[in-house]
Amino acid sequence: MRFDRLLVNARIATMTATGRPWGALEDMACLGIADGRIAWAGVAAELDGPPERRAREVVDCRGGWLTPGLVDCHTHLVFAGNRARDFAMRLEGADRAAILAAGGGIPSTVRATRAASGAELLASALPRLDELLAEGVTTVEIKSGYGLERATELRQLRVARRLGELRPVRVVTSYLGMHGLAPEYAGRADAYVDLVCEELLPEAVAQGLVDAVDGAIERVAFNAAQMARVFRKAQQLGRPVKAHADQYADAGGAAAVAGFRGLSADHLECVSAAGIAAMAEAGTVATLLPGANYTLRDPHKPPVDKLREAGVAMALATNCNPGSSPTTSPLLMMNMACSLFGMTAGEALAGFTVNAAKALGLQDEIGTIAPGRRADLALWDVDEPAELAYWLGRGSPLAQLFRNGTPLAPARWPRRS
Amino acid sequence: MRFDRLLVNARIATMTATGRPWGALEDMACLGIADGRIAWAGVAAELDGPPERRAREVVDCRGGWLTPGLVDCHTHLVFAGNRARDFAMRLEGADRAAILAAGGGIPSTVRATRAASGAELLASALPRLDELLAEGVTTVEIKSGYGLERATELRQLRVARRLGELRPVRVVTSYLGMHGLAPEYAGRADAYVDLVCEELLPEAVAQGLVDAVDGAIERVAFNAAQMARVFRKAQQLGRPVKAHADQYADAGGAAAVAGFRGLSADHLECVSAAGIAAMAEAGTVATLLPGANYTLRDPHKPPVDKLREAGVAMALATNCNPGSSPTTSPLLMMNMACSLFGMTAGEALAGFTVNAAKALGLQDEIGTIAPGRRADLALWDVDEPAELAYWLGRGSPLAQLFRNGTPLAPARWPRRS
Repeated sequence: MRFDRLLVNARIATMTATGRPWGALEDMACLGIADGRIAWAGVAAELDGPPERRAREVVDCRGGWLTPGLVDCHTHLVFAGNRARDFAMRLEGADRAAILAAGGGIPSTVRATRAASGAELLASALPRLDELLAEGVTTVEIKSGYGLERATELRQLRVARRLGELRPVRVVTSYLGMHGLAPEYAGRADAYVDLVCEELLPEAVAQGLVDAVDGAIERVAFNAAQMARVFRKAQQLGRPVKAHADQYADAGGAAAVAGFRGLSADHLECVSAAGIAAMAEAGTVATLLPGANYTLRDPHKPPVDKLREAGVAMALATNCNPGSSPTTSPLLMMNMACSLFGMTAGEALAGFTVNAAKALGLQDEIGTIAPGRRADLALWDVDEPAELAYWLGRGSPLAQLFRNGTPLAPARWPRRS
Repeated sequence: MRFDRLLVNARIATMTATGRPWGALEDMACLGIADGRIAWAGVAAELDGPPERRAREVVDCRGGWLTPGLVDCHTHLVFAGNRARDFAMRLEGADRAAILAAGGGIPSTVRATRAASGAELLASALPRLDELLAEGVTTVEIKSGYGLERATELRQLRVARRLGELRPVRVVTSYLGMHGLAPEYAGRADAYVDLVCEELLPEAVAQGLVDAVDGAIERVAFNAAQMARVFRKAQQLGRPVKAHADQYADAGGAAAVAGFRGLSADHLECVSAAGIAAMAEAGTVATLLPGANYTLRDPHKPPVDKLREAGVAMALATNCNPGSSPTTSPLLMMNMACSLFGMTAGEALAGFTVNAAKALGLQDEIGTIAPGRRADLALWDVDEPAELAYWLGRGSPLAQLFRNGTPLAPARWPRRS
């Protein structure tokens, strides 16, 4: 076959299970693209004829490493304001109550987000999205959850969809009305759950704004029984589920979401052995979030060894949010997953590619370099893939991004000079 | 007087001791520059006449925050190669011996740096320097120490000087032949100290390549008595001293360098109470290096509370080096100083401005915004200075850099879109 585009002179981390580290093709590897999908990947010697005869266009990768485009599978990218003042107060000794009393904390983000127009939310989220793209992201999940009432949740999700139109990135939305209890429902959590199940979630789904349904199963949020009601409604509406689970304490969150064959259980600092077993059985991905673990100075680390042993796939994400993870750097999160959680460099890259795709239910579309997958690719100016996790807060070594096989103007992405 | 340039519509973190956080001027602040120095800083109401009449050129800062240009007072910016493979091996369980056996560790950086030409060292250091500038650095200290023999140490220092000619940044050099024992002198540390004192250091000073003399006082490097010989020689040659001290264990390093009225003692995870007292008495700055503490997963943290209590000025630095701190991000180091060491956001910014200047002996030239100081300034697109430490690995919010009062083309610095 003739390709639309043939990338030559590359090294390729396919992130498929070939038995070689990174699933690597290192020997002058090539990648053929047709109809926006990967048609073939192999070494130059296997190429039948000169590259120019095999494709309409040949791209010289100059020895750089190609990886699947990164997948950021857990973000709260759409929010208003920031929480720098909370951060400063906490360092000066203020506790949670003092910060709340000073008008900070999550309620301040809810207030700011409710007060912001769609245009304002879009304008503040766009630079954050551009920073993700500059570090190789081609798919991003974006949650609602800073409205906790009808209009704002819908607005957040509409802005998320709009971001995917304005930038060459695949946006996957999650409805997170169950992020926390709306202040208007203080002391009446079950009534809020009724509202979510009977009105808010169905309307958001009906408007085409919901790809998956998320919620926080924590002692400080909702219990497993309350979340189960929302998950049942999600399944009636044909939407997969996931959860913020067992971050601060074991609240049975992992097992609860696995019981619904959930896509992922996220955080998991305090997950139990039973929770891990349930995830392994259900194929639920463990999405680990080093940014929050670091920012909250959490002494508990997710049990990477036990998850690995149980065969639970581990994804990573930026968890971009103004309170606990004010970051837009997948590469820094990879470094932190290694340095703080003890993941290997290979696991870290898998966490932002193959396993993150699985956490979104998109493993047949993206996250690996294999025939038939979308040609969403990142080309990196590094000597080996481990460098992606090794450098600590440097400029992005991204040389080029491909979305559906189309190269994006590199001038748009800041990079090392 | 008439200014060469007048910056208006700013907020200014002077980082002087005014009693206000950040030494701030918040009310439509202005800053007048003459002959490359700060001539005046105050609020618009104090300005005598319209800005256009007071200066040849007026720069609108659009409400951004002006700070002193950042000072990175401890870097190993000039080196060859990287240590991504060591990083990956360590995560897969390899210990120091295994990494050395595989050809890694510090000896691999020494080998690579010895083998690299000056042009090669320059080419690899320039992007790192540009990344520092993109985060507001106007002064950078650069050490030798990856040669541990005559020619390479001189080459590193010449490259450091050249970097300061190629970019609008002040470069301060430190001779660090006492970084570790040259492999050729294994088992003969005193003979190596003889060589440094009698030949290597005097020649480097004679060539004008040495602004200060640094060394590692650690059980794994040199003891205090050996370092004292080098420090005495440095003082004979008219050069101030500093030391890598008490990182892995209390080796009396802080007290030793304070005994020579050293500029700074750096690392200090394991400094003793006596060491702190000696530093306070001598006015020696504590330069804390969160990147290495984090990367090495060091359970010991420098005793920030005790240093604060003793009145020891605390500086911060990137410590950019390929082994223990592969970073070029002052802002991430500020965040880590807060999140890992418990410094306040104000202390973090002081660590990269006023106290870093003191750690270089340049407190009368740079590091604060006050009449007579060099107009080395950073203009930030943030709502409050705490944001500089709050965001975690985002793009740089730098809007403009001024070196000796001259604005640098913003297009050269990557920034948030």
